[in-house]
Parts: sequence; structure tokens; C-alpha cells
Amino acid sequence: MIHVVKIGGAVIDEPGLLDRFLAQFAALEGVKILVHGGGRSASEMSKVLGLEPKMVDGRRITDDATIKVVTMMYGGLINRQMVASLQALGLHAIGVSGADANILPAVKRPVQTIDYGWVGDIHFENLKAGPLKALLDVGLTPVVCPITHDGQGHLLNTNADTVAAAIAVQAASLAETCLWFAFEKEGVLADVEDEQSVIASLSLAEAQALMQKGKIHSGMRPKIQAAEQAIKHGVSQVSICRFDQVAALCAGDDLRYTKITL
Amino acid sequence: MIHVVKIGGAVIDEPGLLDRFLAQFAALEGVKILVHGGGRSASEMSKVLGLEPKMVDGRRITDDATIKVVTMMYGGLINRQMVASLQALGLHAIGVSGADANILPAVKRPVQTIDYGWVGDIHFENLKAGPLKALLDVGLTPVVCPITHDGQGHLLNTNADTVAAAIAVQAASLAETCLWFAFEKEGVLADVEDEQSVIASLSLAEAQALMQKGKIHSGMRPKIQAAEQAIKHGVSQVSICRFDQVAALCAGDDLRYTKITL
Repeated sequence: MIHVVKIGGAVIDEPGLLDRFLAQFAALEGVKILVHGGGRSASEMSKVLGLEPKMVDGRRITDDATIKVVTMMYGGLINRQMVASLQALGLHAIGVSGADANILPAVKRPVQTIDYGWVGDIHFENLKAGPLKALLDVGLTPVVCPITHDGQGHLLNTNADTVAAAIAVQAASLAETCLWFAFEKEGVLADVEDEQSVIASLSLAEAQALMQKGKIHSGMRPKIQAAEQAIKHGVSQVSICRFDQVAALCAGDDLRYTKITL
Repeated sequence: MIHVVKIGGAVIDEPGLLDRFLAQFAALEGVKILVHGGGRSASEMSKVLGLEPKMVDGRRITDDATIKVVTMMYGGLINRQMVASLQALGLHAIGVSGADANILPAVKRPVQTIDYGWVGDIHFENLKAGPLKALLDVGLTPVVCPITHDGQGHLLNTNADTVAAAIAVQAASLAETCLWFAFEKEGVLADVEDEQSVIASLSLAEAQALMQKGKIHSGMRPKIQAAEQAIKHGVSQVSICRFDQVAALCAGDDLRYTKITL
């Protein structure tokens, strides 16, 4: 069994929450992989550097200056610090982008109506797990930042939920794999005003319907799309849960979370 | 035979030179490891962010803000981009800091007359090659940035020449190892005004004497100190050569370079 845990932005932005997350991740038994987002760090650094962040549908437009900023922040500061923290907790972590060991090749998004710049799309049908397996085989826990590459020397900014799904699909070709989207809430809420209204089981069709009705927050969209890719390509279970409850849920504790089903 | 090649600052700052270096590094036969410095990138980014770089004897004082900047630049932008470029050249590279896979633990420099801040010193007698061996065994070429960690969750800024020597000492416990300090000149010059005056063979004692007389540029000091550590801890050969001539020298071409001897 392999656990792929994706930790999202808001938790990364608060050191206290991040430490709690990392401690329970380190305590999670068995083979595991961490995928992280970047939180507000890239936008904040872009502002400091006088760059204006440009977003379309929650996706960042990545020009020449911006790919440098996300590489600095996601691939440098956040990733290396997370690895150092996990090593301090006794976990044999190694930080990687998609370029490292060629773990996650991608394709620069073709320009249609919008030119997203240095943004990478992943072709799920072409994924190969060899490089990931090599790291797992020597007992390393990969910590993956949301940057891929085109194999021609260009780094590409890639949605962290999509990266998590792609890594989970690779893992699923090696062993039964669970993908966890860990964030600050306990799961998908039926009523955004009611933290207790966690939907226990949500099919992809139900999720689409709820999003169309505006009942699910738009920030959930990339997770649902990524969950769909993961489930369709062999990942056994995809769940959305609170950042500090993954280990407890794996141990069978009776806690609220959302399971995504086909 | 393992080749550890350290590439220095000035070459990193010029994309044309860096591409030439990376192409010949990729062409170098056999097992190899790349260690890189950071060039002016950290100082320039510090200035943009309104931090004033503080240097003492060529060593950077690394406060809380500065360790973040060097982690962003050395561990993020420079390291990840170099890996992407090497992957494009067909080399199976993986970028690491000393925290990744715990490849290079260090100790925060004790405060004596100067508080260097988050600077790491390496204890050469305690080096263990296990993590490095694991990566080499699966056919990966490590690309090491000059950041280490204290095992307690803190990243530490560490001189790149020292990191190269430490990695070479680890490699030397696995196989015969050559350490190459590659930079923009052909070697150590007897006369700094004469590019042809490359000293073919320089003992550590001679190097010390020349430095004391001011005959060798002060930037050479960390290389000589690192060379001494490497030679004393089992590295077979330490050389200083031009950045684009390592492969040719390994192939036996008759080119000028400086060999450092005990």
C-alpha cells in the first residue's frame, strides 16, 4: 500500500499548521509520498519583485519571470525546508521537482484562446513509474513540488493537485495506492456555512453537478478533476480530509472525511 | 572511478558559458557528481529584496532572511534549472541539497568573534556515503547545491568548494575519486597578469606560501582549503581547470591545468 498525500496552500502558509501536518505525515506507516502546493508564497514574492500575478480560472499565467519565481519558492524555499523538517523528524525525505530523476515529464500547454506561458500539462496515459520506484526502492520518501519539465530544458508550472494525481497514478502501477487531498477542512461540505456537513461519499458525477450549481467552492474544481484522472488510471481510493487526520484515518479512526468515487 | 566536478560562480552567471559547461559535463564518461555554487544570484536577489549582503573574508553572514534567499536561489532556481538542462542533454540528473536524503549533514558554525548565522561547517571525519551511494547505485547523477542542514530542521549555507570536497570524500569511500574545481581560468596562475602562467603542480604548502605572499587571488583560498581536506581524506586527485575542459582532461588531452598535491 502506498499513500500519496497532497498538502495544500493554506496549511503551508502557517508554520504552526505545517509543523502539525509534517509530524503526522512522518508518523504515517508504510510507503508514502508527499506532494505540496505553494500557497501564497509565489504571489507574495512576485509582488515584492514588482510582478503582477495573473490568474485565469484559478490558474496562474506563467511568463519568463514567473516561472523563475515559482521555481525559487516551490522548488527551492518550500521544498527544501519541508525536507529539512522531515529529516529532523527522522523521515528519510528527498525533495524533487518533475525534472529531478525525470520523475514527471509534462508538455507545455498549447496556446489556444489563452497563452498560459510556462505551464505544464500531464499526459496521464504516458506516465512511467521507473524513476519514482527507484527512489522508493532505496527507502526514500519523495517530497514533490508542483513543477514539471518538458524534457527540452524548460521547467513548467503545474497544478499541485494534478501533480499529486499523476504521482498517485505512477504509484498505483507499483502497489495499491490511496491519494489524500489534505487541507484545512474535514472534507467537501454540503453546506459551506456548516463545517459539520461533510459529504461522506461523493461520486464524480455528483461533484460535477454540485459545482455547476455553485454549491461547491471553485477551489475544489482542480481536486475533483485530479481525482477523476487518478481513479480512471488505477488509484484505489481518493479522499479529501483535514490536514492533520491522514494518519488517524489510515489507522481506522472514525473521523469525518470525503471519499471520492467513480 | 568517480568524478566530482565543482562549477563556480562566474560561469553560472553567464548562460552561454553554463550551457557549454553542462554539455561537456554530460559528455564526461563514467560515474559523476556535479556541485555548484551560486554566483552573484543570491547577492543580487538580496539587494532587490532590500537586504544588504554582508561578507567577512569572502564568507556570507547568513541571517534569517538570507538563508531563505540562498535556499531560493541555490536550492531552487539554479539547481532545478541545471537539472532540467542536464535531463534535456540525456543525463539522468537529480538535484539535492545536503538535507535531501540527508546527503550532507553539517553543524551550525559556533559563534566565536563573529556570528556567521545560518552557516554550516562540515566535519570531514564523520562523513557517511550511504545516501550518496543509494543515488549512484540507481544510475542517478546528483547535482548538489551548497546548502546543508543541521538535522534539527535548519538549512545551513555552506561554501560550495567545501561541499564539493565533502562529496568527493564520500565518493572516495566508494571508488577512486577525482575532484575538479572548474572555473573560468585554466588553473592557478603564477602571474595573475599572464593567463599562460598556469602552475602545473602545486603542493598545499606551496599554495599556502603563495597565498601569504599575496601571489594567489584570495578567491582561491576556499579551494585550497577544500583541496587539503579532500586529499587528507582519501580523494585521489584534486585539480583546478577551465570549466569546459574537464572531459578533455579526463580523456587525456594535453591541456593546461593545475594539479594540487599533498
